[in-house]
Amino acid sequence: MGNPTSRPTHRPRTTVLGTGLIGTSWTALLLARGHRVTVHDPRPDTGRTLRADLARLVPGLADLGLTLDPDTDDLTVADDLTTAVRGADAVQENGPERLDLKQQLWADVEAAAPADALLLTSTSALTATEVSTRMSDPGRLVVGHPFNPPHLVPLVEVVPGRDTSPATVDRVVEFYTALGKHPVVLRREVPGFVANRLQSALFREAVHLVREGVVDVAGLDDVVTSSIGPRWAAAGPFRSFHLGGGPGGMAHFLTHLGPGMADGWEHLGRPVLDEATTSDLVAQSEQATDGRDVADLARERDTRQAAVLAALAEQ
Amino acid sequence: MGNPTSRPTHRPRTTVLGTGLIGTSWTALLLARGHRVTVHDPRPDTGRTLRADLARLVPGLADLGLTLDPDTDDLTVADDLTTAVRGADAVQENGPERLDLKQQLWADVEAAAPADALLLTSTSALTATEVSTRMSDPGRLVVGHPFNPPHLVPLVEVVPGRDTSPATVDRVVEFYTALGKHPVVLRREVPGFVANRLQSALFREAVHLVREGVVDVAGLDDVVTSSIGPRWAAAGPFRSFHLGGGPGGMAHFLTHLGPGMADGWEHLGRPVLDEATTSDLVAQSEQATDGRDVADLARERDTRQAAVLAALAEQ
Repeated sequence: MGNPTSRPTHRPRTTVLGTGLIGTSWTALLLARGHRVTVHDPRPDTGRTLRADLARLVPGLADLGLTLDPDTDDLTVADDLTTAVRGADAVQENGPERLDLKQQLWADVEAAAPADALLLTSTSALTATEVSTRMSDPGRLVVGHPFNPPHLVPLVEVVPGRDTSPATVDRVVEFYTALGKHPVVLRREVPGFVANRLQSALFREAVHLVREGVVDVAGLDDVVTSSIGPRWAAAGPFRSFHLGGGPGGMAHFLTHLGPGMADGWEHLGRPVLDEATTSDLVAQSEQATDGRDVADLARERDTRQAAVLAALAEQ
Repeated sequence: MGNPTSRPTHRPRTTVLGTGLIGTSWTALLLARGHRVTVHDPRPDTGRTLRADLARLVPGLADLGLTLDPDTDDLTVADDLTTAVRGADAVQENGPERLDLKQQLWADVEAAAPADALLLTSTSALTATEVSTRMSDPGRLVVGHPFNPPHLVPLVEVVPGRDTSPATVDRVVEFYTALGKHPVVLRREVPGFVANRLQSALFREAVHLVREGVVDVAGLDDVVTSSIGPRWAAAGPFRSFHLGGGPGGMAHFLTHLGPGMADGWEHLGRPVLDEATTSDLVAQSEQATDGRDVADLARERDTRQAAVLAALAEQ
């Protein structure tokens, strides 16, 4: 990964709409992977801000063996949407999560972009079917939902709309795979998709356990980083329990431990994020990180993250 | 880690009761860390079986830089409980999860072991307070619950009983730390402790999403190993959301995204492990692993696991 000589001879033209946290991260990855990138964002001074933001992502990409030059000529800032998407092979949109706004945006993009351009939205809160209602060919829009930050974490949840063809899904998977991402295609649209729902289910119990005084915020994080985290980096939950069943695999696991686990589900917590809980979690989070700067902590996490991903990639 | 020259000059005498999966794994780690280990298990032919089982753990320990000789003289098999625990610095019990049996066992151990021996149970299903009722000094018993397999995964949940003194907890933490483990002390006893409850909460939603046809077993595992797993190996859930809040940290995160997440909690799945679900999960698990042998898959997972842990240890 990250070998400049592996850049494709056809260098895709990709348009990134919206240059917030997610759009900037996509831009960084696309450039590092050899795409010619056009960005558009209605905010003033997009170019200068974006190049400064890209510069901050250089070390994280370097940890993965990727090179990014924030001042590259491969990056173009377009002042209007129509110019931005004209000639694009793919459009990755990262606008605010407002249905009305996204619906109009995608009608406009469809009208101006090439007929064979891939049309992708990073939305985590809406579905392609909802967002595409004003398009003349709604099946063209596909959710490509990254896990934050997209330039580091491999997952992209690919969620086709109701009218998306299998051929379009295949092209989307190919696009993300060529970018070094790990696309997983969902079979149907559901709020929150998969990763955020799983994350939220675990976090709910985490909040419960802290709220009940079983463990503090720092201790809970310690439990996860020294057990479930490394475990699920190595093997997903189903495979883990399949192996936990011994020679009999999942059948043995579900027969012997399934009923106990299902009983336990009824006793999982149902915490409320009320004011007392919120301020306690905030105070404990500050304490657990010794009040260190978030940017500094994020850099440390990204380094650890990259080390884990590199170790897995070598296997 | 694993440097033989770092072995303590005082070599602890540790007794392992029960030589199933967990007891064997503890025995392997203790020997590799230089302990003199006495095991006891009522099953016939314990010694021969155990040495064969230990031999299978040699490669996994080697991945972590640890050396294990299954034929070492440091391993003694005792035919009766009293002999096994006499002279022990610590006793780690891994018997069946039956309250009555464990209560009597611990009364017997207490009567025969040195007065200052650490008394530890690997139980995942019971509490020290429940198990210690027939002991004359119930506060001596502490849960030291490992995450499977104990010779590889760092976490040990240390759960004191109602009457356990802070000094005893400190000694237990010191014992596990010297073994290269990552002990996390829980503040109070709760069924399932922390790691299994968190795991179970996520698995519940995983079962729901597969049952609803959103994703298949292989896809769900892919989602986790390419996002949440590596993320939670690098930073726990609270720290992840603290950083997800940007410069404003957890306060910003909970204010802006907390309410949406809490709403989502109400729509998480409540699946039932009925016969149809069970046979579907079993069939999909077989398919996802191409019907490969569980031992072979476990070896592959352990190699990936060790690579992740080594990468984190280097940070």
